[in-house]
Amino acid sequence: LNREDDLLEWLRRQQPGARRDRPGDDAAILGRGRGARALTADQQIAGVHVPPDLDPGIWARRLLAVNLSDLAAMGARPMAALLTVAVPAEFPLRTFLRAAIAACGDYGIPLAGGDIARSPCAVTTMTLVGRLAPGGKWLRRAAARPGDRLWLGAGVGVSALGQRLVARGARLVGKRVVLAPTGVASSPLASTARQAVRRHLAPAPQLDLGLWLSSQPRAAAIDVSDGLSQDLHRLCRASGVGAVLDLDGLPRSPRLESLAAELGAHFPALALAGGEDYVLLFALGPRRRPPARFGALPVGRVIAAPGIWCERQGALEPLTPEGWDHLAP
Amino acid sequence: LNREDDLLEWLRRQQPGARRDRPGDDAAILGRGRGARALTADQQIAGVHVPPDLDPGIWARRLLAVNLSDLAAMGARPMAALLTVAVPAEFPLRTFLRAAIAACGDYGIPLAGGDIARSPCAVTTMTLVGRLAPGGKWLRRAAARPGDRLWLGAGVGVSALGQRLVARGARLVGKRVVLAPTGVASSPLASTARQAVRRHLAPAPQLDLGLWLSSQPRAAAIDVSDGLSQDLHRLCRASGVGAVLDLDGLPRSPRLESLAAELGAHFPALALAGGEDYVLLFALGPRRRPPARFGALPVGRVIAAPGIWCERQGALEPLTPEGWDHLAP
Repeated sequence: LNREDDLLEWLRRQQPGARRDRPGDDAAILGRGRGARALTADQQIAGVHVPPDLDPGIWARRLLAVNLSDLAAMGARPMAALLTVAVPAEFPLRTFLRAAIAACGDYGIPLAGGDIARSPCAVTTMTLVGRLAPGGKWLRRAAARPGDRLWLGAGVGVSALGQRLVARGARLVGKRVVLAPTGVASSPLASTARQAVRRHLAPAPQLDLGLWLSSQPRAAAIDVSDGLSQDLHRLCRASGVGAVLDLDGLPRSPRLESLAAELGAHFPALALAGGEDYVLLFALGPRRRPPARFGALPVGRVIAAPGIWCERQGALEPLTPEGWDHLAP
Repeated sequence: LNREDDLLEWLRRQQPGARRDRPGDDAAILGRGRGARALTADQQIAGVHVPPDLDPGIWARRLLAVNLSDLAAMGARPMAALLTVAVPAEFPLRTFLRAAIAACGDYGIPLAGGDIARSPCAVTTMTLVGRLAPGGKWLRRAAARPGDRLWLGAGVGVSALGQRLVARGARLVGKRVVLAPTGVASSPLASTARQAVRRHLAPAPQLDLGLWLSSQPRAAAIDVSDGLSQDLHRLCRASGVGAVLDLDGLPRSPRLESLAAELGAHFPALALAGGEDYVLLFALGPRRRPPARFGALPVGRVIAAPGIWCERQGALEPLTPEGWDHLAP
């Protein structure tokens, strides 16, 4: 039990039955019809997801954003948040709470309750409740069908570059990225590096894209949080299908590749396995395409035979679920 | 902002408006009518609420119980749980999760999702969703009226004795209490000590009492988790009333007093301020009384004038909100 998707599958095996409130999607669905609600809970932990000295306002918004991304993957609108905070005495609690309320307010939802406690290390947890828009359908991982096109809500891998920069000391202070300790501050890559730090620390959940997908006759979706490769495997496993990922369709640029090299990484590998992207990966019937305003990218196709393949310059190679795993050693 | 009730009041001030999903009660209420749901989230942290080496099964059941106690104080029935776990590599995750599923199953609810992550210290968080029974009403802190009788769902202070014994090394292993390291293992107080350790580590949420209260025309309730005195102050502040607490009505016994003395404490002080009791404190009109099967205890009366008083042998003394406070230094 050392991988997060093993956990969900294991939980499901321990609680057999076809009930919709069983684990498996990015959020649990409780109830039916108009009263149905999506519930999700996610954590941001000092030294694991965020640097311990991160600006508490950016921390609070990131905590909300990673949870909103789970609702986006269900096609849901947020309704309310609960917040629990386990923090050491020196944690700037008041600033953090004020920022959490403001961030919830930006999405029109109340911070309706929660709990605070002292703790030797800082763990912040948010629960979100969401509902469908009128006429919407829940997005499920299990809805992909052979012949569907695969799409990404935005490019992937940039957040993983930002994570490496943050590990080297880059920070976001208000809206300003401080690159000084990273060694790329004065290089031609600085603006790409700033963008990567922002993408990592201040992800933008794709709620509107999720709502559009929810209005379609059929769409499968998952939040790419643990790496494109791993999350594509999850989507395909849930749907009982395979997929061909078009590597040439994934966005890359000489600057991203140079920055990755500077940070000791290979950009295409980060795009496949970097994690923390918080963009939607979705499957749509071949006659549907998302409106251009979302900037979604076609990245492959769903096939009937199980197995995930990469296509590069016409050749197919198997793709392993090697994405970021929170519990891997 | 160094006290938990200050936090809730502060959150409410930051989010003005009379909406029912604002903080203030033991759970937030989302929606109206038959579709309304209660939401609550609470934490159990190693070294704060539970000893780091606690049997993971007992830990999981305690995490569920403290959350169920919040639903009990709202008059709600549990529907589903989410679980987030932030734990070090050596934490017995599989045993803990199996116990959490089993504990939820005992209450007929699914463990519907959550998140797991590595963390330098162990923080476990549960969110519960609840609903009213048919014909039930939400219990609120603000519903107490002058002339009401005050009741406790069970005696208080025993859990605080158990907490002190656990701090001295007492443990619950399966159903067996191990008192060896505490120095009271072979004393005449051993059976009282075992009961106190059980009360502390394995609290029994008063869901049935909450459901009965919810069926009454009017009842105010709060979960006594931070000490009778502090939670009585909260109930009275929310209702805009005062109260007289009948100290002679609180259960005590020579054995509880001797055990407290053995542990360097004064039992009546623990009953007022010990905390972690997870019993309901409630106010009911003078003509109503809870059925005998609940074993509830009459402990005072609600008065119109603000201020909380203790009555002992006919004399009144002011009572300060000196209960256990998670954030006090």
